[in-house]
Amino acid sequence: MQRSDQKRVLKLISVEEGLDIVSNKLNLKPLDSEIVPLYDSLGRVLGEDVISDQDIPYFDRAAMDGYALKSKETKEASRDKFVRLRIVGKIFPEDFGAKFKIEDGEVAYVACGAPLPLGADAVIRVEETILLDDEIEVYRPLTPWENVSKVGEDVKKGNLILRKGHLLRAQDVGLLAALKKKDLKVFGKPKVAIISVGDELMDLSMNDQDKIVNNYAIVISGLLSELKAMPMILGVVKDDLEEIKKEIDKALEKADIVITIGGCSVGVKDLVPDAVNALGEPGIIFHGIKMSPGKVTGVGMIKNKPIVMLPGQIVSAVAGFYFFVVPIINRLSGLDIVQTLPIIEGELAEEVKAKPGLDTFLLVKVSKESIVEPLPKGRNVLFNLVKANGYTVIPSGKALRKGEKVKVSIFDTKGLTDSIFNYGR
Amino acid sequence: MQRSDQKRVLKLISVEEGLDIVSNKLNLKPLDSEIVPLYDSLGRVLGEDVISDQDIPYFDRAAMDGYALKSKETKEASRDKFVRLRIVGKIFPEDFGAKFKIEDGEVAYVACGAPLPLGADAVIRVEETILLDDEIEVYRPLTPWENVSKVGEDVKKGNLILRKGHLLRAQDVGLLAALKKKDLKVFGKPKVAIISVGDELMDLSMNDQDKIVNNYAIVISGLLSELKAMPMILGVVKDDLEEIKKEIDKALEKADIVITIGGCSVGVKDLVPDAVNALGEPGIIFHGIKMSPGKVTGVGMIKNKPIVMLPGQIVSAVAGFYFFVVPIINRLSGLDIVQTLPIIEGELAEEVKAKPGLDTFLLVKVSKESIVEPLPKGRNVLFNLVKANGYTVIPSGKALRKGEKVKVSIFDTKGLTDSIFNYGR
Repeated sequence: MQRSDQKRVLKLISVEEGLDIVSNKLNLKPLDSEIVPLYDSLGRVLGEDVISDQDIPYFDRAAMDGYALKSKETKEASRDKFVRLRIVGKIFPEDFGAKFKIEDGEVAYVACGAPLPLGADAVIRVEETILLDDEIEVYRPLTPWENVSKVGEDVKKGNLILRKGHLLRAQDVGLLAALKKKDLKVFGKPKVAIISVGDELMDLSMNDQDKIVNNYAIVISGLLSELKAMPMILGVVKDDLEEIKKEIDKALEKADIVITIGGCSVGVKDLVPDAVNALGEPGIIFHGIKMSPGKVTGVGMIKNKPIVMLPGQIVSAVAGFYFFVVPIINRLSGLDIVQTLPIIEGELAEEVKAKPGLDTFLLVKVSKESIVEPLPKGRNVLFNLVKANGYTVIPSGKALRKGEKVKVSIFDTKGLTDSIFNYGR
Repeated sequence: MQRSDQKRVLKLISVEEGLDIVSNKLNLKPLDSEIVPLYDSLGRVLGEDVISDQDIPYFDRAAMDGYALKSKETKEASRDKFVRLRIVGKIFPEDFGAKFKIEDGEVAYVACGAPLPLGADAVIRVEETILLDDEIEVYRPLTPWENVSKVGEDVKKGNLILRKGHLLRAQDVGLLAALKKKDLKVFGKPKVAIISVGDELMDLSMNDQDKIVNNYAIVISGLLSELKAMPMILGVVKDDLEEIKKEIDKALEKADIVITIGGCSVGVKDLVPDAVNALGEPGIIFHGIKMSPGKVTGVGMIKNKPIVMLPGQIVSAVAGFYFFVVPIINRLSGLDIVQTLPIIEGELAEEVKAKPGLDTFLLVKVSKESIVEPLPKGRNVLFNLVKANGYTVIPSGKALRKGEKVKVSIFDTKGLTDSIFNYGR
């Protein structure tokens, strides 16, 4: 039954159903790929499988500073019985290409990384030898290829090095450089338009004492930047159906995803859902999830582009962001994962309960000792989000006891350990 | 005893001693702070304590869509006995400043976020009322301030909001915007010069078949970017004492930290330590740590700027980076922490042993099920670093059994969970 003081009644679906729709039913595809120079590829998502077209190392090389020798000549060596071998040269890493060779009874000094001379099949470390004038004494047998990095030991020609969908880290870029890759195919970064809806809002640059700074757009924009998407804050729109439609329509032109903040609840001035439905097929896909805060979050599609309607309260908006915006961004980015926040396990500092019918999205502060302290519940406020370093979800109807284990998605891991050591003696 | 085939003998110190020197004895101070616009402050380190100069919210406001009323008038209400109240107006968030008032027997419709009218002290949700023409029926008593966000509930004037040394996240920037901060004091970002040493190396742009691409500098530069420092790859220097000295000297002019890669082992061409000692007091502080790989890492100070000598093998260089470069960067950045990588606990997939006298820096691949698989040991190669998602350290002389718990510092958490859910039903 519709009432004049309620704009709509929401048909709530579970978070899982919503996530399944976003992940599987919307049929989202990664954005078109583009070619970037290797040195610009850090943090981008690889748009192609990379297969090595060479061996690394591309020659047998010494893995230690020492002497290259024929291992068979050390077979009889022991603590009590040395083998004496003659030094016939010094080889350094830059000598690759030169054709050094040793004969029986000979060794060559090799610096770590130097090409192994022909004839040699092992390297003994400097410290393990006794040096005479132009000879060394060896006191133990060496096994073939001891202290040698063999051709292709790191990477073999034809190896699949990195998969399409991989997020490029420093070491990945370094390996691609070793393969002499100069350009790379990467997926485009999602452009995300952010529209804030509400007569009460003003932009940060304005100075109206009777208005509220549009700071929630700044939070969402910052979270998008942390995901390496490209946020565009389009500013504030009044609670007016035509203006909201116009702004979303403009946003659909320039962005890959549109996020609205506010105006999607059940109040008489909540007009965003009407705008989304008026703008094209299919419009709203779902609106309302069985989670609090975050209940009035909704997702729609217009012109094949996703629209996420985030609630106008900040913790609700952030809940909607993590559950529905993040998977959409990851899919459009071409990333081969859904999750982005690390999850750790901790112990609840106090009892918590979720209402029947609604999961509770709970901001928490996790200590170094993995004690999980819920931030005051029911306070849907930004300062809680600042004090929090993660969130957990209490399933509807459940009560968890103090000390019970919960999994926490962590916003930032800084401060979770005070030591750089991950080991104790 | 010095040998002609060894440049030096290292006096090894423990990782803990080295870290203590870097953290406490070098007396490093945060870089000078600078003023940046708020919208440029994401990811920067706060250079001042921020204290709120206002209350947020700065008026009592409705936390729900509903009806603002006097709670005392609902005292007798129950399922069987409603209280009927007259609607005298509608109030929206933008109506702050207008002076609404309700009298006994009256209520006003309030949208979520709207200022509470004078006289009201609670809000009943729309769904909990029955709407007649211009009246509502209430069927339960409300407690004072129910569903009201009170003045200063989020932030009180005079509250310490964020501390000096805090790394600014999206939500922090959002809160600062709510406080109408337009500029912020942040610490400068460390400029880090990277010098690669070795006759065998060439820059990525060159195309010499007999040389090795200087890709380790790219790895270190990428890791620095991930830390939000400002890396400068200064290129390749030959194994020549004068050239190395000249290059480090130039680097000291423009950078806050100098990192060298290679040329710091005990081989006859390892000249970086000589250069560091020749360039000024105190020169080298320590050289050689009881960890492998990473043993020949060293740290020096010249002109009050730290120099870190990283080994020329990549896993060794990365080990030295995490243990000594990261704490230096964090200190100069003004960050109030030492550690940056998240640490998780997992179970070893196989037995591992560390030699006596040397801790083992072990690259590992942690699965979604927290099984920790060591990457082939003794293979100090870049592809292992690509396959790894973290590292652990096995203390010298220790043997750990399969299934034993170890702590792993995680390079990237992506892929550690395949679900966005941190909870099960």
